[in-house]
Amino acid sequence: MSGISFLPFSILLGVLGILCVGFTVYWSHHWLGGFAWDGTDHMFNWHPVLMVTGMLVLYGIAALVYRAPLSWEGPKLPWKLLHASLTLTAFILVVLGLVAVFGYHNGQGIPNMYSLHSWIGLSAVLLFSCQWLMGFSSFLLPWAPLWLRALYKPIHVFFGSAILSLVVAACISGIIEKLFFRLSKSPTPYSSLPTEAWFGNVLGMLILVFALLVLWALARPAWKRPDVSSEDNQEPLLRGTR
Amino acid sequence: MSGISFLPFSILLGVLGILCVGFTVYWSHHWLGGFAWDGTDHMFNWHPVLMVTGMLVLYGIAALVYRAPLSWEGPKLPWKLLHASLTLTAFILVVLGLVAVFGYHNGQGIPNMYSLHSWIGLSAVLLFSCQWLMGFSSFLLPWAPLWLRALYKPIHVFFGSAILSLVVAACISGIIEKLFFRLSKSPTPYSSLPTEAWFGNVLGMLILVFALLVLWALARPAWKRPDVSSEDNQEPLLRGTR
Repeated sequence: MSGISFLPFSILLGVLGILCVGFTVYWSHHWLGGFAWDGTDHMFNWHPVLMVTGMLVLYGIAALVYRAPLSWEGPKLPWKLLHASLTLTAFILVVLGLVAVFGYHNGQGIPNMYSLHSWIGLSAVLLFSCQWLMGFSSFLLPWAPLWLRALYKPIHVFFGSAILSLVVAACISGIIEKLFFRLSKSPTPYSSLPTEAWFGNVLGMLILVFALLVLWALARPAWKRPDVSSEDNQEPLLRGTR
Repeated sequence: MSGISFLPFSILLGVLGILCVGFTVYWSHHWLGGFAWDGTDHMFNWHPVLMVTGMLVLYGIAALVYRAPLSWEGPKLPWKLLHASLTLTAFILVVLGLVAVFGYHNGQGIPNMYSLHSWIGLSAVLLFSCQWLMGFSSFLLPWAPLWLRALYKPIHVFFGSAILSLVVAACISGIIEKLFFRLSKSPTPYSSLPTEAWFGNVLGMLILVFALLVLWALARPAWKRPDVSSEDNQEPLLRGTR
């Protein structure tokens, strides 16, 4: 596998990401009644779409910014800003995704935060918030001390992958919850594998494969930025732009 | 976190592992009616216990064998044999866990392999089988060529963590399925968070924390065996014992 280049990998990952979002939109539109922002089921339908788009696909792409060989040349700052912007956009989508599900629950009188899915999902979002704030404070603020950056970098890298693992668990558990809610009273129960169940299962497997490919790319030594110990890498990058 | 030593970490991980297995046994015993091997619900109850014990806890411990500083001194072969034995024991428990759930399904006329949990779980088990066979063939058989070992080692290391991520997704989805099966017709539904739901959710979070700690220890540079490029590490180890 050592000969795999980043471009075809990125195209494959992009196609998988589009499939993940496309499947989620299609499920919400075709089986769950489409979208609205009115406290009904249709408001809930934004939740999976925003979460899969923000917390899985955009987050996964953002995590791989420094794996693009193009990012290894020239100053690192534009790539840091791209990484921070993509993760911030992902975070905004995630917050909207949370508003969608809380709005739906409150509109329908359904309790919040009772399921294991919600516990894992909220843990992922809280860790993601800390990750973003700590990343911004350590790697972009010009007054961030070098010792903080050196101390925090491996933690940031580890939690980047760990949060993605939590996201996978949250997505899978969310799909299963939705399939159980939808099919437990249906004449075609989950165990008879109606088309909707097939569709949800395939979406779950697509999400798994997407996340595993991101984790693989993150762990791959040949795709790590070669200048790990350069001076550029040891300084808060905004210092050079003051 | 650089000063954390392996021993207190192992004790913490051991306590968490015992809690994961203990919670699963208690749930099966206290709420699900205990254990039997007779094609009923009681046969099913072996499934989560065997899977959490084998595929999560034993597998996690086995993955960390080479992170113990004790394993860095002297010949590597005994540690390889320990790693292979622990993973083989885990695999045997996993096969028994599969027999338990298929036996229950067949005994009760429930279809097999319809749920996303089963798709992810079987993917994890199949990858684990390949991982064990490839690991045995590449690292223990004396006639394994060096190029194979060099090519396969990073793949083995990556899939070690990737399979654990799949296991977490399988465990979480299994817990959610069980809670939905148990509580969907109960006077105290999941959304009212009865004690059993709390218990299942906490078990899910314990499993997540256990797995994240294993992944963190695997990724931690300070705990990697220092002799990565030594001659001992480049040869199939049984060659030295012929």
